Amino acid sequence: MSVSFVDVPAGNDFPLQNLPYGVFSTKSNPQKHLCVAIGNYVLDLFGVAHLYPADVQDALRSSTLNLLMSLGYDAWRIVRTRTHELLLKNSQLEHDATLVKKVIIPQKEVEMHLPADVGDYTDFYSSIHHATNVGIMFRGKENALMPNWRHIPVGYHGRASSVVVSGTPIRRPLGQTLPVEGQPPVFGACKLLDFELEMAFFVGGPGNKLGERIPVEEAWKNVFGFTLMNDWSARDIQKWEYVPLGPFTAKNLGTTISPWIIPVAALEPFIVNNYAQDPEVFPYLKHNKSFNFDINLLVSLKPENGEETVICKSNYKHLYWTPMQQIAHHTVTGCNIRPGDLMASGTISGETEDSFGSMLELSWRGTKSVQLNGNLTRKFIQDGDEIIIRGYSERNGLRIGFGECKGKVLPAIPFGK
Amino acid sequence: MSVSFVDVPAGNDFPLQNLPYGVFSTKSNPQKHLCVAIGNYVLDLFGVAHLYPADVQDALRSSTLNLLMSLGYDAWRIVRTRTHELLLKNSQLEHDATLVKKVIIPQKEVEMHLPADVGDYTDFYSSIHHATNVGIMFRGKENALMPNWRHIPVGYHGRASSVVVSGTPIRRPLGQTLPVEGQPPVFGACKLLDFELEMAFFVGGPGNKLGERIPVEEAWKNVFGFTLMNDWSARDIQKWEYVPLGPFTAKNLGTTISPWIIPVAALEPFIVNNYAQDPEVFPYLKHNKSFNFDINLLVSLKPENGEETVICKSNYKHLYWTPMQQIAHHTVTGCNIRPGDLMASGTISGETEDSFGSMLELSWRGTKSVQLNGNLTRKFIQDGDEIIIRGYSERNGLRIGFGECKGKVLPAIPFGK
Repeated sequence: MSVSFVDVPAGNDFPLQNLPYGVFSTKSNPQKHLCVAIGNYVLDLFGVAHLYPADVQDALRSSTLNLLMSLGYDAWRIVRTRTHELLLKNSQLEHDATLVKKVIIPQKEVEMHLPADVGDYTDFYSSIHHATNVGIMFRGKENALMPNWRHIPVGYHGRASSVVVSGTPIRRPLGQTLPVEGQPPVFGACKLLDFELEMAFFVGGPGNKLGERIPVEEAWKNVFGFTLMNDWSARDIQKWEYVPLGPFTAKNLGTTISPWIIPVAALEPFIVNNYAQDPEVFPYLKHNKSFNFDINLLVSLKPENGEETVICKSNYKHLYWTPMQQIAHHTVTGCNIRPGDLMASGTISGETEDSFGSMLELSWRGTKSVQLNGNLTRKFIQDGDEIIIRGYSERNGLRIGFGECKGKVLPAIPFGK
Repeated sequence: MSVSFVDVPAGNDFPLQNLPYGVFSTKSNPQKHLCVAIGNYVLDLFGVAHLYPADVQDALRSSTLNLLMSLGYDAWRIVRTRTHELLLKNSQLEHDATLVKKVIIPQKEVEMHLPADVGDYTDFYSSIHHATNVGIMFRGKENALMPNWRHIPVGYHGRASSVVVSGTPIRRPLGQTLPVEGQPPVFGACKLLDFELEMAFFVGGPGNKLGERIPVEEAWKNVFGFTLMNDWSARDIQKWEYVPLGPFTAKNLGTTISPWIIPVAALEPFIVNNYAQDPEVFPYLKHNKSFNFDINLLVSLKPENGEETVICKSNYKHLYWTPMQQIAHHTVTGCNIRPGDLMASGTISGETEDSFGSMLELSWRGTKSVQLNGNLTRKFIQDGDEIIIRGYSERNGLRIGFGECKGKVLPAIPFGK
């Protein structure tokens, strides 16, 4: 395997084969720059933009990834190939010690930001195990999956403004809930705060015009790369508000993504068969290309001043619908998508109980406790708890990691304060 | 009443008391400039920016209204007062004939654009008559209003990318529908294409940070101004897709707004009592300030090569929830709102049958025909039909108009084309 002149410790998320994109700043330079991660360092793309072909330099000097995303997959390949060359042992860059000192920066010295301006954020509901679990809890085993679920990659529009980068604290919200059916609702702090283990991709390419569809077989060209996501959810607020128009304030309290966008090219060795779909889907959703990924996903809960416990082990490959199908469906009525749009998977639950991607499922609606280290238990998330999502693909000694998506829950601010 | 040196014909939408904001370009100058409407002309704000206080000039030289929106209501008042002075008879501007020639441009020579970059678009469901009508049709008279409806200003996240300016054609979408309950769904062109008569406001002010609430009594400071809106809806697609996460592709085929944003200041003479709410709402939704508006709304349908028929006469004042309540609720869980966000009312239906704001209600789910001029009828919208929404407030000889929000339906593009 080719090796970088930048040290990459064994088991590190960011070998030369990964090269995920992010946006960072430092104390000494608060200007946002694009970067790629390499080992425990970042490569400042602003500082090396002059070493790339002229037509991608503007994109590399931007303060967000939107422009690079818009250039499309040919440009992405050119940038990735060149970055790989520059980071190889004995590269032109390695031999320029002054430049190396300027553009190779320890990750512990950088602050990471949202990698792109999110135009629109869409959340799908593509895990059959999650949809089934929720269905059983709320409608019973017989009617678990809605009649439309196996026909439509069900999704809804989320809130773009409240998408934040890993590390941003999340405030426990106030809101309306209905503790007793048939009684009046009450107002107060959310009692059933939850995480949702998700992944999301950023849309790339020029996008489509309003009124045009993106054919499913072409839709992979619109997937720039993947991040980890925690779609924080106020379950008690959600239950009272979501009929008939869907989740609203129960979700827009914050949605956390990891700072690194893993390019699809880095995930190609981990492509697996698409999930077998039954019944057959409509032609506008049918594609031959395999576009499912073997990505291990781990969720930890870390109580304040406590020790972390892994409470969920899942995998991206459990998803029923592919990103290509999600894009084809999103645009089937002519909706235009734009570079920088974020499309999330929905909660990724597997078949086994330890792979459920939310407290709602892990505690089976609060009917049982989730065991933590240090003799602690949880049914939902408490103030001071930190949720940390990690992900990685691994095969034949190659490990492509996603870094961390984390957020700590702060206590609610009482009404009137 | 004070009078402009620019001619304003009787009954015109845009007297000196209106001064709505828009974004325009001309053939000879494709650069987008801000403007206000005055009679049948626009005043190019870029061209007169130097006549305003220094701290608002950058905003007036922008290509969207977002920066002006962000400055807050003190700045809006300063700009509006100065614009009024400049357009008065005998103003400094009138006496500069060279400048007048440059900055007073006939509306028929300009192309109007989206007035702002819409960060997020939220659609509420605030008309009690519309919610009741839809409820009766789908759940019967006894369960017409959902239990949460009188407690929560129900709303959902819409699609920002597909918000377009008046005049943009709308393509009839393809999608999945379920013509026969219990049978498999089918794929094809939407058969029940509809309009929704709505109004929307643009958010202004600096906005709030994630995790902070906007108190209801302060929320008026975040309302920059109002536009007309047509929330195009594919009813057959919507019915099959919307459970459990709400409308998605049935709505993101396009949402049309009028090009003019009417400032709240221009609507102050038309403020009426808020809708009487029963039961009492939670304190976080309670405000003393009257923030409801008497705005007449008209919807016309114009068949291809045919004559226009007014099919709906409604009024903004029928809305149950105020924009201040909508904002307080939107931010109650800590959702951050940003200048340029668009928040729509939901379909504005009145009590009487001729005031229903959608074909769904006017044709009562297709059970009766809507009569048009020229011996035509409609149950839903046909290809070639143009929907035109108009609005105005009128009292004591003062008329504040909204201009037009229009869009023509183009035939579907068959699958595979």
